[in-house]
Amino acid sequence: MRSAFHQQLEDLTEGVAQMCQLAGTAMQHATHALLEADLTAAESVISDHELIKDRAATAERDAFVLLALQAPVASDLRAVLGALKNVADADRMAVLARHIAEITRRRHPAHALPGDVHGHFTEMGRLAVDIGTATRKVVRSGDPESAAQLARDDDALDALHRHLFTVVMAPDWSHSVASAVDVTLLSRYYERFADHAVEIGRRVIYQATGELPVTELRH
Amino acid sequence: MRSAFHQQLEDLTEGVAQMCQLAGTAMQHATHALLEADLTAAESVISDHELIKDRAATAERDAFVLLALQAPVASDLRAVLGALKNVADADRMAVLARHIAEITRRRHPAHALPGDVHGHFTEMGRLAVDIGTATRKVVRSGDPESAAQLARDDDALDALHRHLFTVVMAPDWSHSVASAVDVTLLSRYYERFADHAVEIGRRVIYQATGELPVTELRH
Repeated sequence: MRSAFHQQLEDLTEGVAQMCQLAGTAMQHATHALLEADLTAAESVISDHELIKDRAATAERDAFVLLALQAPVASDLRAVLGALKNVADADRMAVLARHIAEITRRRHPAHALPGDVHGHFTEMGRLAVDIGTATRKVVRSGDPESAAQLARDDDALDALHRHLFTVVMAPDWSHSVASAVDVTLLSRYYERFADHAVEIGRRVIYQATGELPVTELRH
Repeated sequence: MRSAFHQQLEDLTEGVAQMCQLAGTAMQHATHALLEADLTAAESVISDHELIKDRAATAERDAFVLLALQAPVASDLRAVLGALKNVADADRMAVLARHIAEITRRRHPAHALPGDVHGHFTEMGRLAVDIGTATRKVVRSGDPESAAQLARDDDALDALHRHLFTVVMAPDWSHSVASAVDVTLLSRYYERFADHAVEIGRRVIYQATGELPVTELRH
């Protein structure tokens, strides 16, 4: 019975890991679509989100069956409940990638971004994709050290997010207010993407050590 | 044993209902702080969020104990897992109210809002507070009809959110880009607040009828 439980928990964990990877891939394609005003890429991010939602539904069902049939307690129960929260965070990461694709589609054939913030968003996209991959690895390995690294990756993305505010709000911002609004929301989507990854990392740390990291979610 | 379970589930549900009310109250104070540039009110929203976080932690602990000791199955298990998700949504609602207070504090002694959008935010605040109260009632009663009403309240808030975009992006927007950025984020916080209430409503409907409403979360 115990061993069946651990096999099922492993499957559930692997499902979460794959969702994190899919969210990272969605972010990669969404960033490409945004930077190139590529409508086809934007639309594929939007339609591919259905696949990620299916994964989330499957993982939730697996967790439900596991709880109903195995009635785990203590750390086993904590692991299943943590996995369920991770599913919600990974799904939300994918929703944020979809939001970026939706803004891209709404502005097409125009570019949503003025050329002079391309560099910032290229870097935010790169960081978000790396965070997606790192989150997949952290979920699989359960390693608290790598999980703590996610908060540091998030700091880099946060710094870019804050910097973009100063760019948009500077007196020499030469683009439209509409553009500033798009940049604000897009930047927030990248920032929130990383926040959810940090939440997953915090759960991995808690699972491994029984303690929550001191840093507190601020967003 | 069954009856102990149902008493505990009722306590858990009541905890969620109270969190929804607290989030609504936080939104009321945050909106007042925003409209009046009232620093004291803003700071009390920020510090009161600790109380809501404590409530969330207590509710999560209660759910954990309930699952571990009672090992519920079928609809009882679904109810506990649904309550856990509701806790996360209600907490997030309170975080969004805190974000509004934080922007108010950051801009103080200046007003974060230009005078000509005061009316919009007064109305968004009113709707959000009503949604908080309605969500508390829906959680307590478990009534699917009132739960479905939450999606309609959300539509009203969504419409205001979309309208604000047209105001901010209109060629005759006479305020700074910084102001447009604040309005964009603030409006998004109200909109997301209502989204989380709708999610709670969807779970109440699912719990009562076994079916998910057709409307799909778009945000």
